[in-house]
Amino acid sequence: MAKEITSRAENYSQWYLDIVNKADLAENSAVRGCMVIKPYGYSIWEKMQAALDKMFKDTGHVNAYFPLFIPKSFFSKEASHVEGFAKECAIVTHYRLKNDPNGKGVIVDEDAKLEEELIIRPTSETVIWNTYKNWIQSYRDLPLLINQWANVVRWEMRTRLFLRTAEFLWQEGHTAHASKEEAVEETLKMLGVYSEFAEKWLAIPVIKGVKTESEKFAGAENTYCIEALMQDGKALQAGTSHFLGQNFAKAFDVKFTTKQGNSEYVWATSWGVSTRMIGALVMAHSDDNGLVLPPNLAPIQVVIVPIYNKPEQLELISQKVTQIKAALQAKGISVKYDDRDTHKPGWKFAEYELKGVPIRLALGPRDLENNTIEIARRDTLEKKVVPIENIEFLIESLLMEIQENLYKKALDFREKNTVLVDTYDEFKKVLDEKGGFIYAHWDGTPETEEKIKEETKATIRCIPTDNKYIEAGKCIYSGKDSTQRVIFARNY
Amino acid sequence: MAKEITSRAENYSQWYLDIVNKADLAENSAVRGCMVIKPYGYSIWEKMQAALDKMFKDTGHVNAYFPLFIPKSFFSKEASHVEGFAKECAIVTHYRLKNDPNGKGVIVDEDAKLEEELIIRPTSETVIWNTYKNWIQSYRDLPLLINQWANVVRWEMRTRLFLRTAEFLWQEGHTAHASKEEAVEETLKMLGVYSEFAEKWLAIPVIKGVKTESEKFAGAENTYCIEALMQDGKALQAGTSHFLGQNFAKAFDVKFTTKQGNSEYVWATSWGVSTRMIGALVMAHSDDNGLVLPPNLAPIQVVIVPIYNKPEQLELISQKVTQIKAALQAKGISVKYDDRDTHKPGWKFAEYELKGVPIRLALGPRDLENNTIEIARRDTLEKKVVPIENIEFLIESLLMEIQENLYKKALDFREKNTVLVDTYDEFKKVLDEKGGFIYAHWDGTPETEEKIKEETKATIRCIPTDNKYIEAGKCIYSGKDSTQRVIFARNY
Repeated sequence: MAKEITSRAENYSQWYLDIVNKADLAENSAVRGCMVIKPYGYSIWEKMQAALDKMFKDTGHVNAYFPLFIPKSFFSKEASHVEGFAKECAIVTHYRLKNDPNGKGVIVDEDAKLEEELIIRPTSETVIWNTYKNWIQSYRDLPLLINQWANVVRWEMRTRLFLRTAEFLWQEGHTAHASKEEAVEETLKMLGVYSEFAEKWLAIPVIKGVKTESEKFAGAENTYCIEALMQDGKALQAGTSHFLGQNFAKAFDVKFTTKQGNSEYVWATSWGVSTRMIGALVMAHSDDNGLVLPPNLAPIQVVIVPIYNKPEQLELISQKVTQIKAALQAKGISVKYDDRDTHKPGWKFAEYELKGVPIRLALGPRDLENNTIEIARRDTLEKKVVPIENIEFLIESLLMEIQENLYKKALDFREKNTVLVDTYDEFKKVLDEKGGFIYAHWDGTPETEEKIKEETKATIRCIPTDNKYIEAGKCIYSGKDSTQRVIFARNY
Repeated sequence: MAKEITSRAENYSQWYLDIVNKADLAENSAVRGCMVIKPYGYSIWEKMQAALDKMFKDTGHVNAYFPLFIPKSFFSKEASHVEGFAKECAIVTHYRLKNDPNGKGVIVDEDAKLEEELIIRPTSETVIWNTYKNWIQSYRDLPLLINQWANVVRWEMRTRLFLRTAEFLWQEGHTAHASKEEAVEETLKMLGVYSEFAEKWLAIPVIKGVKTESEKFAGAENTYCIEALMQDGKALQAGTSHFLGQNFAKAFDVKFTTKQGNSEYVWATSWGVSTRMIGALVMAHSDDNGLVLPPNLAPIQVVIVPIYNKPEQLELISQKVTQIKAALQAKGISVKYDDRDTHKPGWKFAEYELKGVPIRLALGPRDLENNTIEIARRDTLEKKVVPIENIEFLIESLLMEIQENLYKKALDFREKNTVLVDTYDEFKKVLDEKGGFIYAHWDGTPETEEKIKEETKATIRCIPTDNKYIEAGKCIYSGKDSTQRVIFARNY
């Protein structure tokens, strides 16, 4: 097995790509900026989808499907939305190819030009609100709590597997409400769902907060986000939940009759997370030996490797493994028994380490004699030999322990890399020396925010929703008055 | 509730669209030929996906995801494939919009023209085989058993909700094998999976068969299909499984080293079913009162409606319903209790009849006194009053009975509408008077097939894989010798 992973210390970016490639998560496709999500990577996405889909349904949402194409004119209806998305989109202009009269394959048939160009959805607010217009007449039709699992396209110039790709997979919730209060409540409820998912499934601690005006979603009143810290000290936005006010209802003329008989514009939210989370997962936990997966999202939670010289030994081992496998599967644990004779145990050990399987069991003839088994944890790389009896209970609790340990490690890391800074010099020093989350005072103006970004590449990640630092201070850049600290970081 | 469904006798096409619209399955979107799949319709698709996905995984397949875009040049690599798909595709030519200098919204930025146009996938053989090229070196890398759940686009000129839309959702399996035998076996195995799914889940009997040369998939050696008969006597192709030979391996130069050390082209299959199956489901079982759903795919299997005049009565009824609901849910049955006070019971009855809920329970004060409940079946529209005790067992077996009854009804219908015909006059007469499947002799030439299609609009649906009519005869059109009957029908 080709291990050869660049170390984090040597080149963090390359380390990330090495893991994504060598753990068989994804690869670049022949189409610029688009990725192929390989079976192992896709099975992590399936686990994420299953968990999130259940959380959405438990909070009253249903799934639906809206078209991939958005008529160009829809974009112009919401002024800031078009500004935010028109610059990076795939545009369908024709609907037929024909044979090249010069015999060079196929060419676009110019006779098949669309009257109005179609945009591949970069996000679906416009096409969905154009549909909601016909679905909503009265307060009885509200709330509308709909989610969509879909692919979207944003024509990014610089792409990186999972983190930023031209096409990506995501879910986008789009809800409609009778009152502002209810829409705000929904926005925050879904932010809570994302934060719970990040912490309990991804094992990544996140800070919930609200974006500044400059960083908010094009078309939103407020954008809430969950922000995570990666091992290189850069922040990653892992999900967003937008309070859209009545912006899209006004753009698409969606009104409803209230209980009192008045006609009012509908209130909206939208919220999404994407395959980007797989990138976050890789960068938060993995090490120089490969991927490290939290058990809750690991496609294979336990792998069993037989150690043997002779076929008779393998047969005895396999009999024992059949029992162990059954006991684990009865507990809902996913197990793989790798009895391939084409590879040596050492090769297999390295392979599953690289692929981040949380627990590895190894069983040899001496173990059979002693009724023991070797158990190895991927997170700490610890190994020990334990009695084989009731191994399923040990493994069940160890999986939980690993899940918690990964979360705790990530939380410790974040705490060690979160600082309060009061001067611009110190701010720049921290950014260059270790990065991380920086709590600093800011005067609240987009001009200062922009200057700091230009000079340091650090952005305001968010104003935490439960800010511990609501306190008077002076802006690190302008020296003007500030009422609270906000979180700065360089980011993905 | 707006019932007003056109009857089948009056206008079958309109009846179909009425059901799709009024049962809230789907609607046309603002984009020509694309549909919005509404929550109720989408939840049927989710049930189909879950059942199929499990069947694919049980047969050793894994999911992955390949790009939406296919470079134009990929199409030219497989000669018949480009002929089959180039005529109906969405073509991306630009990647940016800009503000119209004349202030009229946004226009395509001509400076952002792609060097090579991208086609929205109508099917993914080309992009997938271009990827497999890098994944396959040796026999050890085979078989590759991969499935993808995705949206695809075919620029159809005449569209109809679910049955034929420009964008639709589907799954496409793409497998790679070391030998022809293994690939053929896979093709037939997946045909078997589709047929089992159609019969056990959709409750639709299907005929497995192979397509003629003219009807096969563009790029296949052989296309196998499952063909179902709709209530208007027209056939519907519900799924296809293709043996692709080495066509795509040759087009994309995918070779592997055999155990013996030779270099050979890889053998391929592909297979798919789509949201079209929802159309088949509607047309196979529904009646003039609305949708009829087989219990295995019904999002709501049982609905409970309270009958009351006073709030105190509702309270007592609701207490009883809570127990019934829990008992049903414990058996894995999905139940909805509709206690809305905004609608009368009669309105609700009609609503759930329209939506095809297999079983309706109604509970009133007199039932509470007598410990009884009214139970109504959607398939037969029968009602009876039964003891409330152990109702969950009755319902469990009734759901199975309904599932079987729907299948049996559809099978009876097909048998009544399948005929053997020996002359062209009789052939045309049957087509015009009742339609259905017609077993007739054909001389095996594409010319005859084409003539019959031109003159009667009937096509050869398939040559059944277990043909009961392998027998000498004369072609109904040309009078030439034939060795077996094939199935003709008009079709969707």
